[in-house]
Amino acid sequence: MSIASSLVGLDDIRAAAERIAGTCLRTPVVPFVTPEGSVPWAVKAEGLQPTGAFKLRGATNAVALLDDAQRRAGVVTHSSGNHAQAVAYAARVAGVHATIVIPDNAPEVKVAATRRWGADVVMVAPSQRHARAEEIAAETGAALIPPYDDARVIAGQGTVGLEIVEQVPDLATVVVPVSGGGLVSGVAAAVKALRPDVRVVAVEPELAADLAEGWAAGERRVWSVADTSRTVADGLRTDSVGVLNWDHITAYVDDVVTVSEEEILAAVGAVVRGARVVVEPSGAVAAAAVLKGVVGDTAGTTVAIASGANIDPAVLARLV
Amino acid sequence: MSIASSLVGLDDIRAAAERIAGTCLRTPVVPFVTPEGSVPWAVKAEGLQPTGAFKLRGATNAVALLDDAQRRAGVVTHSSGNHAQAVAYAARVAGVHATIVIPDNAPEVKVAATRRWGADVVMVAPSQRHARAEEIAAETGAALIPPYDDARVIAGQGTVGLEIVEQVPDLATVVVPVSGGGLVSGVAAAVKALRPDVRVVAVEPELAADLAEGWAAGERRVWSVADTSRTVADGLRTDSVGVLNWDHITAYVDDVVTVSEEEILAAVGAVVRGARVVVEPSGAVAAAAVLKGVVGDTAGTTVAIASGANIDPAVLARLV
Repeated sequence: MSIASSLVGLDDIRAAAERIAGTCLRTPVVPFVTPEGSVPWAVKAEGLQPTGAFKLRGATNAVALLDDAQRRAGVVTHSSGNHAQAVAYAARVAGVHATIVIPDNAPEVKVAATRRWGADVVMVAPSQRHARAEEIAAETGAALIPPYDDARVIAGQGTVGLEIVEQVPDLATVVVPVSGGGLVSGVAAAVKALRPDVRVVAVEPELAADLAEGWAAGERRVWSVADTSRTVADGLRTDSVGVLNWDHITAYVDDVVTVSEEEILAAVGAVVRGARVVVEPSGAVAAAAVLKGVVGDTAGTTVAIASGANIDPAVLARLV
Repeated sequence: MSIASSLVGLDDIRAAAERIAGTCLRTPVVPFVTPEGSVPWAVKAEGLQPTGAFKLRGATNAVALLDDAQRRAGVVTHSSGNHAQAVAYAARVAGVHATIVIPDNAPEVKVAATRRWGADVVMVAPSQRHARAEEIAAETGAALIPPYDDARVIAGQGTVGLEIVEQVPDLATVVVPVSGGGLVSGVAAAVKALRPDVRVVAVEPELAADLAEGWAAGERRVWSVADTSRTVADGLRTDSVGVLNWDHITAYVDDVVTVSEEEILAAVGAVVRGARVVVEPSGAVAAAAVLKGVVGDTAGTTVAIASGANIDPAVLARLV
């Protein structure tokens, strides 16, 4: 099959796991207490990564794969969120210069979090972010590290799936939040290679359900950012999944479901109280799907990936 | 030395680590972001244990060491807090019956948390808790599992120290909250056996500073529960450290410091925001000492044990 040969495989993910071991945390799977007879479930606490989100895995793998000339020229990316911090941190650990292009409507707190790791920050109008990052790459020779549509990044995120399979012997279902699709691509590739019997379910906010629409239609769909920006899950506002990500999703994912804004906010509080794990709204959508009762079964353990914990403390206080 | 021969040793703690591996989590050490030139530090996130506190380690080790006759007769303890839940959970995992004696002024939420794990709960007047637990042990043959003054429990808690030494190569200081002294006894024994150069510092609330007073006087001191009950750190209200614990502390601990109520409450918020780790007031006293600037140095990493996360959500909301 022509597509399959271009997909990230188990060997790529296992190699990524070795590369990132010194920088990224092997995060715990924290069980929920559930009544007898209900779905046993747990959260994979990716918010404990040093930058507060799983994104550090893919960024660290991509930086580790640079050749010597690229290391000297540095890296560049565009993001206002968890990927920006991840690339900045991974570059710093590797002793590589990083330039991060950030849209000038990004919150100051996220800009500061990126500068904290020593990255150069370039502020541009939101519509210029892709072009400016590519310009910098062309001018300086810096290697572009895309946030999700990239085999190195997908392999890094896939290490989350490797760990879950190792940590949960009676694993039945893995539930994964989706935006650009980097996490679900890698996790699904890893899980299906090792445990083809385990279900992998992708979850989106109803207000950013481009993948759910595309899944139903059988072709990748792109939404307007004006639409996807409505969701409180600020890490899941990408307008579509990536091309390489679409190929992984159609090859490996079993189902795509959606959750409402109310369900996402309720899940933040439920995860903090029930598993004592801090989670941001984007990181709570998988848990929201479990709590809604639309994924998982009693045949084994369901693991919801709590993908990040970068939440405004005032919002956290309101939701716990 | 006669005392030394009765202390828990590295072999006991390593054996405990093997016994508890299937039940307790190897918890992550989560770094704080600190400005250049300041003390680099991290928290050991014990609140991620299935019962929300390190106590599960000692209880699991004690239950695993029961002989067949004891297993048939079950276990008994007295506690209204994290040790009660730990014994109930450890017994359930091992298929052993547990009876927990709880003072009848304990909050309903803690009674429910103990019943949740299938333990029989016996409510008594607070002054009767020790006597009633011993009565039950005598009547039924159930094995008493004390909360801290017990070699099996100390060895279990010491596995926290083993893990920290393995997880943090440049370890310089370990900071440990103290109530009865089970955690600090085991951690100090493990750390000093493996890394005698690493400092171990014990921390108490000023309002429950029986150990700090005894440390200065050179002999174990007992406070009134009326006094120790004043602290917001409800897991640290024990009236004194145990006898076996005093021997470990004087043999292995480098210093004892105290923190105020305000410092404890501020540390809860700082840990949640800075490390994205949920912590209860009792679990935040070690972090409070680091933030106060009275422990740690820039020569290596300081690890503060965040011992538990069983915090009332309303209190958490107020402190983040």
